[in-house]
Formats: sequence, structure tokens, C-alpha cells
Amino acid sequence: MNEQRPIGFIDSGVGGLTVVKEALRQLPNEAFVYLGDTARCPYGPRPAEQVVTFTRQMANFLMKQEIKLLVIACNTATAVALETIREELPIPVVGVILPGTRAAVKATTTGRIGVIGTQGTIKSHSYHRAIAAKSSQTQIFGLACPKFVPIVESNEYHSSIAKKVVAESLKPLRGKKIDTLILGCTHYPLLRPLIQNYMGPAITLIDSGAETVGEVSVLLDYFNIGNPDPANVGSCHFFTTGSTKMFDEIANDWLPVKVTSEHVDLGK
Amino acid sequence: MNEQRPIGFIDSGVGGLTVVKEALRQLPNEAFVYLGDTARCPYGPRPAEQVVTFTRQMANFLMKQEIKLLVIACNTATAVALETIREELPIPVVGVILPGTRAAVKATTTGRIGVIGTQGTIKSHSYHRAIAAKSSQTQIFGLACPKFVPIVESNEYHSSIAKKVVAESLKPLRGKKIDTLILGCTHYPLLRPLIQNYMGPAITLIDSGAETVGEVSVLLDYFNIGNPDPANVGSCHFFTTGSTKMFDEIANDWLPVKVTSEHVDLGK
Repeated sequence: MNEQRPIGFIDSGVGGLTVVKEALRQLPNEAFVYLGDTARCPYGPRPAEQVVTFTRQMANFLMKQEIKLLVIACNTATAVALETIREELPIPVVGVILPGTRAAVKATTTGRIGVIGTQGTIKSHSYHRAIAAKSSQTQIFGLACPKFVPIVESNEYHSSIAKKVVAESLKPLRGKKIDTLILGCTHYPLLRPLIQNYMGPAITLIDSGAETVGEVSVLLDYFNIGNPDPANVGSCHFFTTGSTKMFDEIANDWLPVKVTSEHVDLGK
Repeated sequence: MNEQRPIGFIDSGVGGLTVVKEALRQLPNEAFVYLGDTARCPYGPRPAEQVVTFTRQMANFLMKQEIKLLVIACNTATAVALETIREELPIPVVGVILPGTRAAVKATTTGRIGVIGTQGTIKSHSYHRAIAAKSSQTQIFGLACPKFVPIVESNEYHSSIAKKVVAESLKPLRGKKIDTLILGCTHYPLLRPLIQNYMGPAITLIDSGAETVGEVSVLLDYFNIGNPDPANVGSCHFFTTGSTKMFDEIANDWLPVKVTSEHVDLGK
């Protein structure tokens, strides 16, 4: 078994980079390869079958890069495609929903948890089901925020428009008395300061993506496929189906490593 | 597959109760069964082969209780017996060393990590090896604290003697400029206030046992053996090879559930 093989990450666009950022910190000995389907982003409003097809295409592309573990670093894709992809691939496949669920159940003291995500994720009720299965006493409040992903993908997440959109979108959660809010989309951590500011400092924000790295680390150890040889520390490759310029701008703003992405075509 | 089967915990004595406490919080839908080998505690100074034998006896006892996953909630036993027991049992087996390692690598900012544990755990260099494999830039400072377990097992962890012993034992770590300290023995969280007080508020204490519950949760989900039916919520059974009176005193001081343990004889 070649333990130096990279860990693969797929996302509908740049959102999964929030997971890679945490992976670079928690798994400094590992190599990574990332594919963002920027050209077909957002996935949130697409029909489930199409999201499964796109996710499979991305997974197969990364399998050719000889990855040892795949992270579906996209909540929408996790919600509808995780089980299928897990059955199809011979390597461990990790999604972002269960890790966020675990962290939220651990964090809440009142048992009132909010979840924000894309339309696809919220409509799937994946977080509701996962939380209810773990902790039957918990109340969950889901809210779709369809405007968040386009703001991040267009590199406007530092703008005043972003602040306004965040406030308007999150308004329905005011008065729900939640103490924990799951960022149920890997794009949302880029809006984290605005979200925290609007919700107030008493609300614990759960970054599903960051929590996912803990699960990756558990499975690397459990299946004994971690890389104990630091020779290829920090090796990262990035692919995007869209504009490499836009991708690199966001990636270099967000990550501590220099990113020069390659373009790849997966069809329409 | 009967997902309502309990999760098993074994420890040399009462230390593993610190893991159960966290499990009750993070996995409220699960049932638990615990065996503490109080009569043969401490394991720390015993030869490795003997610890393997004792651990196997405990694991086999819990297998008869039809557990679905085993937690070796004892660092000494994890250090020397995890691999063997994992090979011998048909269910997932989890130790406490890797979870503590992961949390420490995540928490440290200076890369200087201390580890305290029994003589057996420190001598095994298990934490050293596990941390080095994950993060080659990290410096690790190990220290055996053989007086801690007897203080906890004799229910003296609230006493002034405990305060003095903690200060004397931890003195060698002063001046090492660590920013993170792993409590590499499941008994030590009962001494946590004294340890934090001596080390100072700037040091992040890592409770290996509590971190282990995160790994249990990941594996329950990964192998799809979590209990989604809350009918048996909070079902806990406790066994000890020693005095049930002493065990119940400590367990009822520490846990939020009422504990009435049963005696079991595993030999000498």
C-alpha cells in the first residue's frame, strides 16, 4: 500500500478550500489534490440525479490521480451522492454532513440547533435526519441561503453587499433561540465573520468542513493509510473546471500555500 | 445487525469513566457497558505481556455482553494491547492514544507538546511515535506520573495531598515551553482542575478519553452501527473486579447517571 498517495477533495467550486485549509493544519504530513467544479457551480438548485452524475465525474477524475481517500467537500453533493459514491469506489469516502452533525450535538447545551445550507441540502433534510438519529431530544431549524454561494464564487465575500445579504438571509433564524448554528455548506466559512457578527457572539458556529478533517484523520489511522514519511509534506494540486484566474485569486486569499490551479474539462 | 447492542468500555479501574461521561453527552442514543479491573489496578507498572492478557480477559468478558464496538479506555492497555485485541475481535476496537494525538496536533500553535501518563504508557513511546507520524515538526516531552492513578482510585482526588502530588510530579515540565499537555491516562481528568491550576491557564489540556468519543462516533457512522432508536437511551451497566462500594462512590461523584456496579471475578 502506497501511503504517500494524496487525499482527494471535490466540491462544486471553491467552498471545499475551507476544508483543505483545515487539512493543511491538522494533517501536515499528507498530500492533497483538489477539484472544484466551478464551471457548473452552484449545485444547490440542481436536481439530485444531476448532482450525483457530476459528483461521480469528479470522483472518477481524482481516482485517476491515485487518491487514497476521497472527501466530498460539498454539502449538496454529500446529501444526495455520498452513499452511491461510497458503494462505487474501492477507497474510503467521507462526506461533510455527519462531522458537522457530531460537532453540533457536542456543542449545544440547549438542544436547539440551526442549519444553513443550499436549497438542495436543506430540502434533503440530511442534517435533520442525522441529528435526530444521534440525539432525539434536539430541535433543528433549517434555512436555505441560496444567495451565499454566488457571493463567494464571485469573490465578493469581503464586500458590503455580502454583509447585507447575510443579514437579510439569516433574519428567519432570529427568535428561534438556537445556541448552535451549522454552516452546512463549505462555502459559508468564507462568510463566517459576517455570519457571526449578525447572529451574535453567543451562537457557536460549526464549520462542517473543518470538522470533516477530524473524520479523515480517524479513517487514515483506522485503515492504517496515513503518510508517516514527511518527504512530500504540503504537496497540493488544484484543478478547476472554470476560470483558473478567479479560482487562484480566492484560493490564494484563503490558503497559506501558493495556488496555481490547472483547468480541466468535465463537460456540461 | 442489531444496532441497539451496547458500546463496551474497559479500563484498569475507574479512569475510563471519564470517557463514559463524554460518551453519555455526545452519544445520548447509545447504550454502554463498562468493566473496570479495579482489583488489578494500576496497570502502569506491569509488564506489557501481562497487560495484554488482562486486556484480553476484559474484552472477552464484554464480548459476552454482545457489544458492537470496544473502547480500550486505558492508555496503558492501548499502548501495548490495541493492535492484538483489534486482530482478535470481529468488531471495531478503538484506543485512546490516537484521538489524544489528533487533538494535540490540532491544538498546538508552537509545536511543543507535553504528554503525561503511567510508566507503561510513557515507556512505550506510543504518543511520541503517533505524534511524529502525523506532524514531523513537533517536539514532544513525556513525563510519567506514577502517583496519580493511586490517588484517583483511592478517591483522594479532591484532597490537599492530591494538590501537592500534582505540583511535585509536574515540576519537570516547567520551563519546557509547551503550549499543549496531553492527559495521557484516563484517570487524569479527575485531577484536571489541579493540573490546570499548576500548569497555568495558557496551557491547553487534552483529555485523550473525551477525544476518543469523537472517534467512536465516526466509526459508528462509518460502519452504520449507530442506534437510531432512542428506546434504550442512557442504558448503562457497570462491572468492577474490585470493591463495588468504592467504584460506585467515584462513579456517582463523576457521572450524571446513578451507578450501581456489579462485581465480577477475572482472576489474579
